[in-house]
Amino acid sequence: MFDFTIDATSGPARAGRLALPHGAVETPAFLPVGTQGTVRALSPRDLQAVGAELVLANTYHLHVRPGEEVVAKLGGLHRFMAWDRPLLTDSGGFQVFSLDGFREVREDGVEFQSHVDGGRRTLTPERAVEIQWTLGADIAMAFDHVAPGGADVATARDALDRTLRWLERCARRHRELSDSRTAGRPDGKAFTVRPSDSPTVRQTLWPILQGGAHLDLRAEGLRRILELGSWTGLAIGGLSVGEPKQVMYDMLEALEPRLPGELPRYLMGVGFPADLVAAVERGVDLFDCVAPTRHGRNGSAFTPDGPVNIRNAEHREDPRPLDATCDCETCTTFSRGYLRHLFVAEELLGLRLLSLHNVRFLIRLAAEMRAAIRARDFPRWADAWRRRYTQTGSA
Amino acid sequence: MFDFTIDATSGPARAGRLALPHGAVETPAFLPVGTQGTVRALSPRDLQAVGAELVLANTYHLHVRPGEEVVAKLGGLHRFMAWDRPLLTDSGGFQVFSLDGFREVREDGVEFQSHVDGGRRTLTPERAVEIQWTLGADIAMAFDHVAPGGADVATARDALDRTLRWLERCARRHRELSDSRTAGRPDGKAFTVRPSDSPTVRQTLWPILQGGAHLDLRAEGLRRILELGSWTGLAIGGLSVGEPKQVMYDMLEALEPRLPGELPRYLMGVGFPADLVAAVERGVDLFDCVAPTRHGRNGSAFTPDGPVNIRNAEHREDPRPLDATCDCETCTTFSRGYLRHLFVAEELLGLRLLSLHNVRFLIRLAAEMRAAIRARDFPRWADAWRRRYTQTGSA
Repeated sequence: MFDFTIDATSGPARAGRLALPHGAVETPAFLPVGTQGTVRALSPRDLQAVGAELVLANTYHLHVRPGEEVVAKLGGLHRFMAWDRPLLTDSGGFQVFSLDGFREVREDGVEFQSHVDGGRRTLTPERAVEIQWTLGADIAMAFDHVAPGGADVATARDALDRTLRWLERCARRHRELSDSRTAGRPDGKAFTVRPSDSPTVRQTLWPILQGGAHLDLRAEGLRRILELGSWTGLAIGGLSVGEPKQVMYDMLEALEPRLPGELPRYLMGVGFPADLVAAVERGVDLFDCVAPTRHGRNGSAFTPDGPVNIRNAEHREDPRPLDATCDCETCTTFSRGYLRHLFVAEELLGLRLLSLHNVRFLIRLAAEMRAAIRARDFPRWADAWRRRYTQTGSA
Repeated sequence: MFDFTIDATSGPARAGRLALPHGAVETPAFLPVGTQGTVRALSPRDLQAVGAELVLANTYHLHVRPGEEVVAKLGGLHRFMAWDRPLLTDSGGFQVFSLDGFREVREDGVEFQSHVDGGRRTLTPERAVEIQWTLGADIAMAFDHVAPGGADVATARDALDRTLRWLERCARRHRELSDSRTAGRPDGKAFTVRPSDSPTVRQTLWPILQGGAHLDLRAEGLRRILELGSWTGLAIGGLSVGEPKQVMYDMLEALEPRLPGELPRYLMGVGFPADLVAAVERGVDLFDCVAPTRHGRNGSAFTPDGPVNIRNAEHREDPRPLDATCDCETCTTFSRGYLRHLFVAEELLGLRLLSLHNVRFLIRLAAEMRAAIRARDFPRWADAWRRRYTQTGSA
């Protein structure tokens, strides 16, 4: 369980397979984001139809609403969402540090304001792990202190050091839960999970590498993470948080030779089509991002020739599909003219159809990269892809 | 083509089959409403999955946006919506008379204000028929003058007489189009449809009976409609427009013996579950209504035990399906607790899942009535259904 096997490489790019309790994930892979236990506008059947193998849900959002205890009573997150394939929950760290409202960082944890009811709540590393254990995703993430995009060395070091101290506490609590088959309660105490209460939780915990845009901090963080234990995966956080794209690309390139080859590498919160290609070229295996659904709801569609804004008047009488190369329901069923009509007329179906296509686009993109890596043709494929995607200058 | 065969009766209730160019419709049947060329929040695959056999689209809405010429350029309404099964378009009469904004009725037609851009437009009987011919649904409706719910005899007679004069003009124009294979242009002139331009239009025109709540006017209107030509169906309009339910039921009951037995009877704009049962008991075959989708978007679900408001706190941890008797995706996949979460968290998927269930509920209801009529068990079935549906007093 939680085995990662690499079956082909092309320079730093890798194609592989991650075995998880609820199924296998072919990598490189894109994870659709189901913030509140639903990938916005899409059903589990839609996700299955577009080939999603691993879906992300947000611990922070599910904790404040409906609460992990409600999810547990309704059979755990898989049953709650009706998604019986692999799930990953983030730790809530990113949300606590990026959402508006009050927050106060202490060594113990973070006190913050719920975006739902404004009430004060506290997340500690232990609680973040307990909540995720209660939710029951295949992969849980360690609770991290995310520094802002342009943080100076002192700020980034402070956040990195805290993240590492919190990682130890997360790992300890996760081990306790795994060993004793216990789950956390809202008061922070533990109670034993009886096997009859819920399906057996089989979950792994992944650390998140912080360090901002400072390579020496990242390198130190990585070394200390690997000293802390043996992991089944490694996430890279704190990138794509406002810094120039090239800073992220350079950081990935510099980190890559230092990363243990045998662990899947998960670049959190990325991304756009060109980012996926650039990151796979630099050895990344997993991605998540709200871009495909958020942009889809705004009428922006990914295509191999760059983004298309379906609201534009040019699509009014266009009988062509959104993306002639795509096999999704949207592209095989509807014309651009009809999709434009749905957006202009503010019809709900439009939000869904563009979200569906955009998610499918990134999942197909990952599959194409996999195939190119296996064919040992990745550099040529990536250049050709980039040339076509950016030829309109609108990417 | 356009044949209606009745294979079983139980008192005034009938079970039958309406043959249309794009397929057959088993009756009694409920037609989901696709106002703007889409049944709100549902895809054509969803409609197929819930067993929809005939879908309604609104002529007025498609005329003002995107315009019937755009629909025609995108291959006609079936292709536009990606619905290759039977379609019916209303005439625009109801919308012109019920939407807010300026309107002026003249003998020639109605001048009104577009709800999209506020611009003045005119619909005449000929234009309404031409627009519907251009859209290309299987069934077009005659352009009618709809009097308000509580209209007095003089107002109702005026509207009835005008509706009948307009019916003659609609029928003449529809015959011209059918005979000469021509389609209307925005300027009201005709142009020949070349067979290569679009699929052959095979369309029938149905009259709409008006007369308000006045039986003598309804009876006279019916007689004059039947004198005007031989029809393939008959619609009853101007009911369910604000009058008490019992007035509608009584009118249907009084009209029923006067209706020609061989024509399908379409009660426009109805309805709610109990209305469908009451109207089928009074000999109605077809229904359309926005209630299942509109209520679904508001979190209100039809169940055999009466309506359920999924937002209620009682559903918070309820693992049961919305309707344990239902075979739809919503009921076979998700718990009430999850559905409530979707509504409380304002997730788009909730709007879709409740709309899907409510449409399936009415389509199943029609199918159950069909089966009961064929089993010659309809009165007993209807009583039992009503007892269960209203036992909570919330129907």
